[in-house]
Amino acid sequence: MTPTNKQLRVVPLGGLDEIGKNMTVLEYGDDMILVDAGLMFPDDDHPGIDLILPDYSYILERKQKLRAIVITHGHEDHTGALPYLLKDLGSAVPVLGTRLTLGLIKGKLEEHSLKKVKLREVRPGGHVSMGAFGLDFFAVNHSIPDGVAVFARTPAGSVLHTGDFKFDQTPIDGRFADYAAFSKAAQQGVTLLLSDSTNAETQGQTASEAVVGRSLREIFMQADQRIIVASFASHIHRVQQVCDAAVACGRKVVVTGRSMINTTRIARELDYLHIADADLLDAYAMGNLPSDKVVVLCTGSQGEPLSALARIASGDHPTIKIEAGDTVVVSATPVPGNEKAVSRVMNRLIKRGATVIHKGVAQVHVSGHAASEELKLMLNLTRPEYFMPIHGETRHLHAHAQLAESVGIPAENIFIGENGSCLLVDQDGVRRGASVQAGVTYVDGMAIGDLGHMVLRDRQALSSDGLAIVVVAIDISSGAVVGTPEIITRGLVLGASTTDALEGARVRIDRVLKRTAKEGVTDSAVVKKAVRDSLSQYIWETARRRPMIVPVVMEV
Amino acid sequence: MTPTNKQLRVVPLGGLDEIGKNMTVLEYGDDMILVDAGLMFPDDDHPGIDLILPDYSYILERKQKLRAIVITHGHEDHTGALPYLLKDLGSAVPVLGTRLTLGLIKGKLEEHSLKKVKLREVRPGGHVSMGAFGLDFFAVNHSIPDGVAVFARTPAGSVLHTGDFKFDQTPIDGRFADYAAFSKAAQQGVTLLLSDSTNAETQGQTASEAVVGRSLREIFMQADQRIIVASFASHIHRVQQVCDAAVACGRKVVVTGRSMINTTRIARELDYLHIADADLLDAYAMGNLPSDKVVVLCTGSQGEPLSALARIASGDHPTIKIEAGDTVVVSATPVPGNEKAVSRVMNRLIKRGATVIHKGVAQVHVSGHAASEELKLMLNLTRPEYFMPIHGETRHLHAHAQLAESVGIPAENIFIGENGSCLLVDQDGVRRGASVQAGVTYVDGMAIGDLGHMVLRDRQALSSDGLAIVVVAIDISSGAVVGTPEIITRGLVLGASTTDALEGARVRIDRVLKRTAKEGVTDSAVVKKAVRDSLSQYIWETARRRPMIVPVVMEV
Repeated sequence: MTPTNKQLRVVPLGGLDEIGKNMTVLEYGDDMILVDAGLMFPDDDHPGIDLILPDYSYILERKQKLRAIVITHGHEDHTGALPYLLKDLGSAVPVLGTRLTLGLIKGKLEEHSLKKVKLREVRPGGHVSMGAFGLDFFAVNHSIPDGVAVFARTPAGSVLHTGDFKFDQTPIDGRFADYAAFSKAAQQGVTLLLSDSTNAETQGQTASEAVVGRSLREIFMQADQRIIVASFASHIHRVQQVCDAAVACGRKVVVTGRSMINTTRIARELDYLHIADADLLDAYAMGNLPSDKVVVLCTGSQGEPLSALARIASGDHPTIKIEAGDTVVVSATPVPGNEKAVSRVMNRLIKRGATVIHKGVAQVHVSGHAASEELKLMLNLTRPEYFMPIHGETRHLHAHAQLAESVGIPAENIFIGENGSCLLVDQDGVRRGASVQAGVTYVDGMAIGDLGHMVLRDRQALSSDGLAIVVVAIDISSGAVVGTPEIITRGLVLGASTTDALEGARVRIDRVLKRTAKEGVTDSAVVKKAVRDSLSQYIWETARRRPMIVPVVMEV
Repeated sequence: MTPTNKQLRVVPLGGLDEIGKNMTVLEYGDDMILVDAGLMFPDDDHPGIDLILPDYSYILERKQKLRAIVITHGHEDHTGALPYLLKDLGSAVPVLGTRLTLGLIKGKLEEHSLKKVKLREVRPGGHVSMGAFGLDFFAVNHSIPDGVAVFARTPAGSVLHTGDFKFDQTPIDGRFADYAAFSKAAQQGVTLLLSDSTNAETQGQTASEAVVGRSLREIFMQADQRIIVASFASHIHRVQQVCDAAVACGRKVVVTGRSMINTTRIARELDYLHIADADLLDAYAMGNLPSDKVVVLCTGSQGEPLSALARIASGDHPTIKIEAGDTVVVSATPVPGNEKAVSRVMNRLIKRGATVIHKGVAQVHVSGHAASEELKLMLNLTRPEYFMPIHGETRHLHAHAQLAESVGIPAENIFIGENGSCLLVDQDGVRRGASVQAGVTYVDGMAIGDLGHMVLRDRQALSSDGLAIVVVAIDISSGAVVGTPEIITRGLVLGASTTDALEGARVRIDRVLKRTAKEGVTDSAVVKKAVRDSLSQYIWETARRRPMIVPVVMEV
């Protein structure tokens, strides 16, 4: 590679100061590579929103430069924005990923009727050239198989992006993280390391996935009735361990829940999940088997209301009913914000007579992200000149920065950024550039992007204090009120007697309208404001609430 | 005590299958005692609700029997319903509690303008007779000082109610749980034990409050700028330890946040909190001190949006601004449901340059509830014939029941109940009786109780899909439409072009109204339904949303 005065720009568009919607742009001259295209699931601050995507207008504005989209692994916070981005790009940009990653992506793209996407398989340990970029892929461990880190080299310098990772010393598929490749990258020179910060606050070493297999086997041995295990569908290693424990205990596996069925099918087709056909049953065929010969594997470990586990807990699953003495294993940890939903499902299962085993009482889950000692190991293996923690809230990014300092990265070589932050890499090192446009795009039903903060604010206001609608008919010529104002409320409490309160409000509005009529006001905007103000004040005085007030003035 | 054929009825009205609003009725013949009168704070499933109270109509229907309300300790989930209950009772029922408990209650009652309440102080180790009830109070440890268990004896049998407790072997106030009293109760005979299940799923022994003091001192020693500690205001032991560590490091303590100021004032007046006047500063007087001479003690450990800590994090606290290098200690654990709010506040503090220390990275918090070994110890100290786990979700109650079985309580002598469950105690033992009315009462602004599920459902619908209002004016004589229908939306997204969508909707509604007019329909209910159905269908077809639709038909 010859020296050049071109710069490599590194721009994370998602995943900083948040968990989710990971997306990082690498741009060098006329070439651009995107690493990951993830989404985020909304919380209660986003009522009615289905999905949150990164604002990727920066990419769309430079789409002629985009040589490839590299996906590090098949989780939705790394792949979920892909269908939307590909539709918006409109061109056939190749999507690079390992075999399982592409298999999972393919299923998602088909749901979006995207059939002509160029999916290009890469192997861990393989190399690909894309414009000015040389890309190497290194195996890492994570809570989904076939994850990779990406080492991107350009004449201006190199970036190593870890993706999501942990170092599992006893991985259940025997696929170790590629320590040799990381060390070799260090020898070649890593200018900038971008590394997963999710568990940076957790001390020590994340436990191996293998410990979960041992716990499951112990639990299965002791159960003398039906066993139900809920987990993430994409956690193929976990699914494998459930299958292995079931078969070892002479039980058949029944898979239920749409995503669990789809994912296990894809994983078996691609040879990532190994269970004999004879050991796998359809939920409808289960009725013939004694309950101590079955393990049900299902979705719903996050307490999602429509999931298989939630429906089993509520007694409205079509084929699976809890009987006293059944064992339910929740083999996952609640994502922050889901704690109460998960607890609700557990309580319902227990009321139906099940014994519920979760992470709090047995080692039925381990994280897929590196804890502090592993993060330090990654830093020491790759020995980067510069470091930017990615994938985490601010607290995690700062904790990761401290770990980096503790292993000798100078504080001035560590960059904590936000979405849209830009780092410039060249022969002189790494420094901050001007930030670019970044943010969120909401997906709400069929509408994408045009859902502003206004709509969300309205929904929040409606949900907290309800609504009062006042309809007034006005004679357009005279400004005189026709009939009596009508008041309609929804989600609003007006004290002991709603009828009295509404009557009082009507009197107040009448008085205001008489005044505006007397003043000769015919501008409906002025009448609306007067009506809104008087009703708002009345409701505050009498009920101490501030509902949204929608005045409607009909001109007749 | 002479034998009798009267029964003792034990009815928990709150605290079963939930954390919060604890309330238990003990009723014997013409005498009734209430143990605790707590509230619960609502979560996101209750938009716009301020508080949740137990439905205590069972008590109101028998209020002439009520001899006393016994409060085990001063937390709001044990005291918060008291102002509402006392107003509804209308009579001067004595409220019994220890000195600090009554001190905190007094403050709350004054806020509700309740000044004539009979507060009657009891001492741990003391005895009180109330009608047929002999009541003994036993000291226990908890995350507020002066907590007691209640031993209630009647001719039909005895009930021991633990309140919230832990066994702290090194309590920082030197006040041990009264092991001798529990043992003596066992000798006298405990027919039924009701015991705190909050931490029944936690193995082992809850750590002593004393360990937090050591952590705080270490953190304070290393800090060279301002220190801010957020905690629950009522956790006087924690507050004491913050004060002690501050004074030991030569720092003054500044208290901010309304409840923190009130509670520390009451605790100092009643001699439960010890710090010299000279070591306590007003937030406005702080400006004169160097930042390494101050510890700020504030509310907001749960991420509450209007709390002192949240305002400091957002930069809009009137007197306290974060400077780079400040240390913030969050000395609490998030209550389930508050995790994201707490994390948001921490991220903001870190962005302003603070180092944030929380339970995940240092031992700055311990629980106030007994873990499994302590719960077994309570069972073995008191040796009850019968057992009912209280204070916990179903999962906690079941875990506690298993602990009871493990120490030899026969399964058939363990009762898992729900709010309103009734246990009957007499010479023959304990058995289940018919359940009584129980449930929730919502407090929303000034309105209490009349806020039905309808209002909550409306708010949830409004928050998830928004709202469309259609106003149609109809000539009352002919049924003909006057003018064009008006459509108003709030919190609703209608696809790429809202204007086009609304125009399309208007056309659809016009068509429906022409049809109803042609059919001679003048009944406004029928017109409303036709308008609602057509708009609902139109929005589903074009935008796949189901907003709440409010049709308004004005007759002119």
